[in-house]
Amino acid sequence: MTMFGAVEAGGTKFVCAVGSASGGSLRTTAIPTRDPDTTFADIAGFFRQAGELGPLAGVGLASFGPIGLDPAAPTYGHILATTKPGWEGTNMVARLRDLVDVPVALDTDVNAAALAEVERSAEAIRNLAYVTIGTGIGVGLVVDGRTVKGFGHPEVGHALVRRHPAHGDFPGTCRFHGDCLEGLAAGPAVAAAWPSSGQSFAPDHPFWAVESDYIAQLCMTLILTSSPERIVLGGGVMQQEALFPLIRARTLELLGGYVHGRSDMETMERLIVPPVCNEPPGLVGAYLLAEHQ
Amino acid sequence: MTMFGAVEAGGTKFVCAVGSASGGSLRTTAIPTRDPDTTFADIAGFFRQAGELGPLAGVGLASFGPIGLDPAAPTYGHILATTKPGWEGTNMVARLRDLVDVPVALDTDVNAAALAEVERSAEAIRNLAYVTIGTGIGVGLVVDGRTVKGFGHPEVGHALVRRHPAHGDFPGTCRFHGDCLEGLAAGPAVAAAWPSSGQSFAPDHPFWAVESDYIAQLCMTLILTSSPERIVLGGGVMQQEALFPLIRARTLELLGGYVHGRSDMETMERLIVPPVCNEPPGLVGAYLLAEHQ
Repeated sequence: MTMFGAVEAGGTKFVCAVGSASGGSLRTTAIPTRDPDTTFADIAGFFRQAGELGPLAGVGLASFGPIGLDPAAPTYGHILATTKPGWEGTNMVARLRDLVDVPVALDTDVNAAALAEVERSAEAIRNLAYVTIGTGIGVGLVVDGRTVKGFGHPEVGHALVRRHPAHGDFPGTCRFHGDCLEGLAAGPAVAAAWPSSGQSFAPDHPFWAVESDYIAQLCMTLILTSSPERIVLGGGVMQQEALFPLIRARTLELLGGYVHGRSDMETMERLIVPPVCNEPPGLVGAYLLAEHQ
Repeated sequence: MTMFGAVEAGGTKFVCAVGSASGGSLRTTAIPTRDPDTTFADIAGFFRQAGELGPLAGVGLASFGPIGLDPAAPTYGHILATTKPGWEGTNMVARLRDLVDVPVALDTDVNAAALAEVERSAEAIRNLAYVTIGTGIGVGLVVDGRTVKGFGHPEVGHALVRRHPAHGDFPGTCRFHGDCLEGLAAGPAVAAAWPSSGQSFAPDHPFWAVESDYIAQLCMTLILTSSPERIVLGGGVMQQEALFPLIRARTLELLGGYVHGRSDMETMERLIVPPVCNEPPGLVGAYLLAEHQ
């Protein structure tokens, strides 16, 4: 089996592995994210030791963002504006390539996860949106089999949404936009809006209507812009599975019968789904990046 | 010169031509849109006469929608739900292919226009959004050099926007969604909201702030979802060129400095622009569809 390296770079940890998307990982490790020098020293150690398993044909990097994705731009592979101390301006691709000495293929963590969900889907699909709703809201897009990179990469988590009346005058938690989608519907926003609720909400709590309305607005935007065959909703907030039927019903209501083939509940049940990839999707996506480069 | 056919199918007229994207049209005609049989009989007449100029290598069809774009689906080439009497269910591709007896390449009129704007751009770009704001709001998208088709095609004209306070309780004119973007900002909505204003507005009229806010919200959604290098704004409403600086300024304000490389007015001036294609962009796009198939 041809062996690849995979790195899923996140704000709290870097998951590193060697193996392949189809064969799984032969060895894997999680390295806490500290400053770039310390973190990359540990990554170097992992790949040096893993060298005993055989040579790598390439490495895929699924990275947190914002990160430069245009191979022609001087910022390619660099972490752009970020709140993570010490990481802004770090050339992730160059640092990783220096360690592994094989080609490094780059995409965002959420684009890589979207690729993994396409790969693991039971049906042949070519258009998928991967949404993670946790400490932030990240969106990865695959259109016609390829991830959307364009000038930058999808940042739909910061889209404007219509405020739900039951949210009152909650100002939102996004430091850029206040009450954009992420500022109203990500985990920290939920915790800030209803601080006494902890992790669970009674069935009649306004959380259910508010949260499902916001995520349905995102689903509508995705349907109207990139026509996905599947919208995969993951992340901590979506562990509350009761959100799924509410989101599907609200999306149907918002679409108002306008989009052909998107006007009944059966379609919504196939369209808006939890992740199917059992392994960490960013890591599987990182293998796919390496294998497709 | 290899000669192609081009058809831009619209709700009021079908523009038919023979020629090429680079060489221009050798002959062109506009056929009023009536019922499908009468309209296609006239189209047949045009292409029969144009046959004296030489054979066609292929025909491109840039059509009004919604229309089935998935070549694998039974609805491929069919007009889907529409308010145009007699046209729902019409197989546009099959009817045209029967007339011309060469391969017919299909896309939406706005996707074709987006292709034409990419082709005519002075710089090499691969990601562009084409927006026409007239009797409706249509959006075509080119991502990495190819039009976005996905499950359906972009329908961002019906995205939800936040209502502008100066719009009062204007209910919107979209028959599907009431106050979606098209229901608030297309030509008929402008006319319905301020019926006494006719075609021109005084500099202190709320139209300017309201309209530019809605279109800026669309620009923000496009930037966050498909990262265009250029957003081309055309159509009747955009003939009011004073909207451009207002839209650019409001988009910048809405983005809040979040998107790398999209945080100054110079960038906005290159990003949000009027069309550059002098010929009808849907027709140029139709040639491109035929030439690329």
